[in-house]
Amino acid sequence: MKPLFWQDNRLVLLDQTHLPAKETYVVCTNHRMVGDMIRKLGVRGAPAIGAAAAYGLVLAALEAQDLPESEFQGFMDSAARELGETRPTAVNLFWALQRMAPYYRGKTPQAAAAALLAAAVRIHEENDESCRAIAGNGCALLSRGRPLRILTHCNTGPMGTVGEGTALGVIARLWESGSLEMTYACETRPLLQGARLTAYELMAAHIPVTLITDNMAAWLMAQGNIDAVIVGADRIAANGDTANKIGTYGLAVLARYHEIPFYVAAPFSTFDFTSASGEEILVEERDGDEVRRVAGQYIAPKEVPVRNPAFDITPRALITAIISDRGNIESPGKENLERFREGKVSDGYFY
Amino acid sequence: MKPLFWQDNRLVLLDQTHLPAKETYVVCTNHRMVGDMIRKLGVRGAPAIGAAAAYGLVLAALEAQDLPESEFQGFMDSAARELGETRPTAVNLFWALQRMAPYYRGKTPQAAAAALLAAAVRIHEENDESCRAIAGNGCALLSRGRPLRILTHCNTGPMGTVGEGTALGVIARLWESGSLEMTYACETRPLLQGARLTAYELMAAHIPVTLITDNMAAWLMAQGNIDAVIVGADRIAANGDTANKIGTYGLAVLARYHEIPFYVAAPFSTFDFTSASGEEILVEERDGDEVRRVAGQYIAPKEVPVRNPAFDITPRALITAIISDRGNIESPGKENLERFREGKVSDGYFY
Repeated sequence: MKPLFWQDNRLVLLDQTHLPAKETYVVCTNHRMVGDMIRKLGVRGAPAIGAAAAYGLVLAALEAQDLPESEFQGFMDSAARELGETRPTAVNLFWALQRMAPYYRGKTPQAAAAALLAAAVRIHEENDESCRAIAGNGCALLSRGRPLRILTHCNTGPMGTVGEGTALGVIARLWESGSLEMTYACETRPLLQGARLTAYELMAAHIPVTLITDNMAAWLMAQGNIDAVIVGADRIAANGDTANKIGTYGLAVLARYHEIPFYVAAPFSTFDFTSASGEEILVEERDGDEVRRVAGQYIAPKEVPVRNPAFDITPRALITAIISDRGNIESPGKENLERFREGKVSDGYFY
Repeated sequence: MKPLFWQDNRLVLLDQTHLPAKETYVVCTNHRMVGDMIRKLGVRGAPAIGAAAAYGLVLAALEAQDLPESEFQGFMDSAARELGETRPTAVNLFWALQRMAPYYRGKTPQAAAAALLAAAVRIHEENDESCRAIAGNGCALLSRGRPLRILTHCNTGPMGTVGEGTALGVIARLWESGSLEMTYACETRPLLQGARLTAYELMAAHIPVTLITDNMAAWLMAQGNIDAVIVGADRIAANGDTANKIGTYGLAVLARYHEIPFYVAAPFSTFDFTSASGEEILVEERDGDEVRRVAGQYIAPKEVPVRNPAFDITPRALITAIISDRGNIESPGKENLERFREGKVSDGYFY
């Protein structure tokens, strides 16, 4: 089961909102359909969103094959803008759209379509390579001594990354190398990506998993059941502050209190060096019915006011290390992230 | 809408598992029905469980009116044991059963039934008085300066207390006195008492409430949106360690990290002076399907292993004060709890 694939000039997206109950595929024939799927979280996870948006631009070029060249650029720019407005926090979205722009700017519709498709396929393939590198780097950092009991949040597996996963890729690699005892998956309210996707993916891969509600994490830590926390990221600022699924920040505080290491696993494309710190990251606030309803049923009064921030920001000081495809960054901060950006490896894997 | 009432020699219980969608009443004609309702959380909240169990013993005596006196005592003792085995953590259950015992021991079935009913009604009424006292003491402690934004967990209102509430009673009194700006109610997975009951009760009382998922609390604290946390309790050990709904301990750690005061509100009947500390409190582990399912629907793979502790223990060091019907206990510990137990008021309201 793949989150997305390109077939016969269409982007086929697995609608993840119905998983694991139903396996529904949506065949996107234009970029608006892709945008709608990103917006409603049919496709989700920062790296997967980036890949989907890249293919979305290919669809836009195919839609515009008959436009005069004078209108083509405007059409493509506005398609890119529409795709960019679907989710405000995941930086891979903007990164992918920016990377795609040179392949249609100044080109004919025909030349652009071919170039964009090649670029989208490259982003897709790179996601896969990034995940493999992250898994290797994470395993090198963590597999020391006895098998670990690892807590994770949200979904960072194949479904969210178009690869073997970021945090979940590390967990899978630890399992393969005999260094994992148990994965504790937080269910991740409101949209339950942990319960629906992470539990599902780990069970399918025969990796030990125990599902908990988000509010049980602290108690498991207090009981000595957790050795490390690993999460993914939607955007990492230039100083290491990390935006990730709501609930991540609380886990980082709890990990610090219980003296448990806290790791973020993310590819280079998730770093946003234009945001100096987490304060500059916009946190998406989503529809309140995501909180009021579960599986389509209201579990609260329909009129009750709610808050529904989709993400929170974990300050760099609470992060033990960032595990990345280009190496690991221990105690992340402005200086070592700058060296990381420039690719100056200073100490083997570590920046 | 009341959680329970006695009518025509039957105990009528509101089945809270269906709230707020459906208002279903169960007419209990024997003590086993009461036990089943407690076990399945049809009636819940430590004080309400105590009152329900007390009436359960009245029903047991009525069932046994035709038994010879020699068998009556054995029947009643076994009914008390059955009721006591329904929930292991809420101490009010055992407290109520112990208080009821003298009213059937050594009595004829006829005399016992009348005496037990009078005692159950007294427990019921005392719950009401306790809640009023807690609300007054909490308000005296907290209503200083500007209106507060208070975070609470689970349900501690009329539905769980057979009175105006413990933590929620304090919140209601603060609102009446102009000292409340907003209540943030954690939804309280797995059984969503915050979303189903607290949001409902506060809206019905026209008290401002905003519902959040449990994992949003940390982020709201970091954003400066929370002035205080108030929760109820299922059992308070002799040193102040407090068992309460799963998720409470995490909130206490987060409150400490963000320098936000953390209060526990509970009646004298929730104190268990026979448990020296939280380590002696048994934490109930409930059925895994409570985590795997929401509103009857599976939200996770059916076979996924889960943990489902119903409670956690908050160490006394994380509790700013316990608000009680007999006064407030600041920085609770063995010494001031002992004075509290003996009723030695040392400093006005405070022990």
